[in-house]
Amino acid sequence: MKKTAPWLALASWLTALTLHGAVDALPSWNDGRGKQSILSFVSDVTTPGKATFVPSPERIAVFDNDGTLCIEQPAYIQCCFAMERVKAVAAQHPEWQEQEPFKSALAGDLKGVLGSGVRGLTQLPTSACAGLTLDEYDRVVRDWLANSRHPRYARPYTECVYQPMLELLAFLRTNGFKTFVVSGGTVEFMRVWTEKVYGVPPEQVIGSTVSNQFELRNGQAVMVRRAEIELVDDKVQKALSIEHVIGRRPILAFGNSDGDLPMLQWTASGGGRRFCAFVHHTDGQREYAYDRNSPIGRLDKGLDEAAARGWTVVDMKRDWNRVFPFEAASTGR
Amino acid sequence: MKKTAPWLALASWLTALTLHGAVDALPSWNDGRGKQSILSFVSDVTTPGKATFVPSPERIAVFDNDGTLCIEQPAYIQCCFAMERVKAVAAQHPEWQEQEPFKSALAGDLKGVLGSGVRGLTQLPTSACAGLTLDEYDRVVRDWLANSRHPRYARPYTECVYQPMLELLAFLRTNGFKTFVVSGGTVEFMRVWTEKVYGVPPEQVIGSTVSNQFELRNGQAVMVRRAEIELVDDKVQKALSIEHVIGRRPILAFGNSDGDLPMLQWTASGGGRRFCAFVHHTDGQREYAYDRNSPIGRLDKGLDEAAARGWTVVDMKRDWNRVFPFEAASTGR
Repeated sequence: MKKTAPWLALASWLTALTLHGAVDALPSWNDGRGKQSILSFVSDVTTPGKATFVPSPERIAVFDNDGTLCIEQPAYIQCCFAMERVKAVAAQHPEWQEQEPFKSALAGDLKGVLGSGVRGLTQLPTSACAGLTLDEYDRVVRDWLANSRHPRYARPYTECVYQPMLELLAFLRTNGFKTFVVSGGTVEFMRVWTEKVYGVPPEQVIGSTVSNQFELRNGQAVMVRRAEIELVDDKVQKALSIEHVIGRRPILAFGNSDGDLPMLQWTASGGGRRFCAFVHHTDGQREYAYDRNSPIGRLDKGLDEAAARGWTVVDMKRDWNRVFPFEAASTGR
Repeated sequence: MKKTAPWLALASWLTALTLHGAVDALPSWNDGRGKQSILSFVSDVTTPGKATFVPSPERIAVFDNDGTLCIEQPAYIQCCFAMERVKAVAAQHPEWQEQEPFKSALAGDLKGVLGSGVRGLTQLPTSACAGLTLDEYDRVVRDWLANSRHPRYARPYTECVYQPMLELLAFLRTNGFKTFVVSGGTVEFMRVWTEKVYGVPPEQVIGSTVSNQFELRNGQAVMVRRAEIELVDDKVQKALSIEHVIGRRPILAFGNSDGDLPMLQWTASGGGRRFCAFVHHTDGQREYAYDRNSPIGRLDKGLDEAAARGWTVVDMKRDWNRVFPFEAASTGR
């Protein structure tokens, strides 16, 4: 009774074509080790009968956000949002004139803000948006995204995402993967735009969380953002959050900084075929070049561990012929 | 260029058949208000062009577990597990002889254990499984489920689930819903069996959480359960967890106790068509009859609010012609 449906056969044939290069699902990736390691992994886990085959429901792929899927220089997108928002509501908070990281934010001192670390960076938007209902918060973020521009590219931040990674996300989903974003940013900030920009729905976004208050107002349930951080989703917490929210160990993890290392270690330590990779920011011309000594997206231990374990390190300059969707594709290497 | 694919047309035709009764997707539900309210809701949100139409990605449905999808009498399944587990490891914890809820668990005193409330009920398995890696924990739960039996039905606990609710879960998924379990039980306990029993994958299970420790053992990442509860997923926290993990407001919520009320209130307070329902345990013969005064699954305020708001109250005795999968269907009302 069981026959392969014709569209399944078609999908399988398209996958085979893609894997064998007749259709290039990753056109912004130059031929090279980065691209080959992806194609070979996907082929290994999706080819029925192979010892490395993984059933579709177990094809969990996790991606860091800032610096992995989108630009994080000269500052994390949410940090730019928070700095403007702090100014907008500063009149209600005279105490911020003397308190960090608010003082630096009000002075427009990005370096001072970044010096407050991930917790400070999470506290900034949390405090600046406290008291908003979730619907109000959603509108504030949407308005800011629509009206703000990246200082270098003069494009909306949501266009400053990496074209090769958009192609990779889509390619993985076509091959039966479920793609998750696992970020240090607060979860509601990302959910406003990840579905439209990455094709990743809200329920597949994991991040830092802010404490909400549940209230009944005239019999209607609303949630109000409090000034309190519940969880900072960075380093070891990224692995712990993946376990708490997804409950399956990923088979693919992509990051770009030491904050992503435990997530990659957790992924790598499962049985069977695994894929771990870092985006290495090597292109100071088209984007920004930074790694071991950067205050943002520091990639130091991660580079060493990737070399020792044979993980993929994507060299942005060498591996990507196009960085942003708004750029024309270059002619390759 | 855009044409409806033939299999979409087929799916739509099958749905229409189901909704109009030519194929009964809910055979264990008697014709009556409960079943009709479900069919009418699903038709309203899935019929393109209707003002009440909801796009598939927004069709989020949440279900409480104990007492809504599975039996919770004479004690929550996880409580039965914990009581046995406490005995098994008691030799390593002489202090438990004098501490509640351990003392009651060791004496086999279910009433004493239940008296410790949801937090005590969460602490029991948490303490009894502390120190296990997640893989070890998984095996312990699997072994217990395979070897234990419900005291009344002499069946594995995972067979003591409600056939009408299994049909409802499948019916909703067929109609483009994403089904989530939102339970007071700890999330890893449920994930061992929800996919097989309910068709709900691990990443769609939300529950109480235990603090895990991330460790590198010979370079391999493992997680070890700590004795510490992170979050008790009950009452208002159920609504807050839905927001944190799913990030979309559900359009359907099903519970059976006052602990589920905030989850239903949160669901009901969204715009557009919503469906909220309680399972009312009215069948002392086939199952257990309990509501306003029960220490387990108390349904008191919920019954009043359901009446005031016109939510569906499923009368188990009247609405279900079959309770468990292992029962033959009765001839109806």
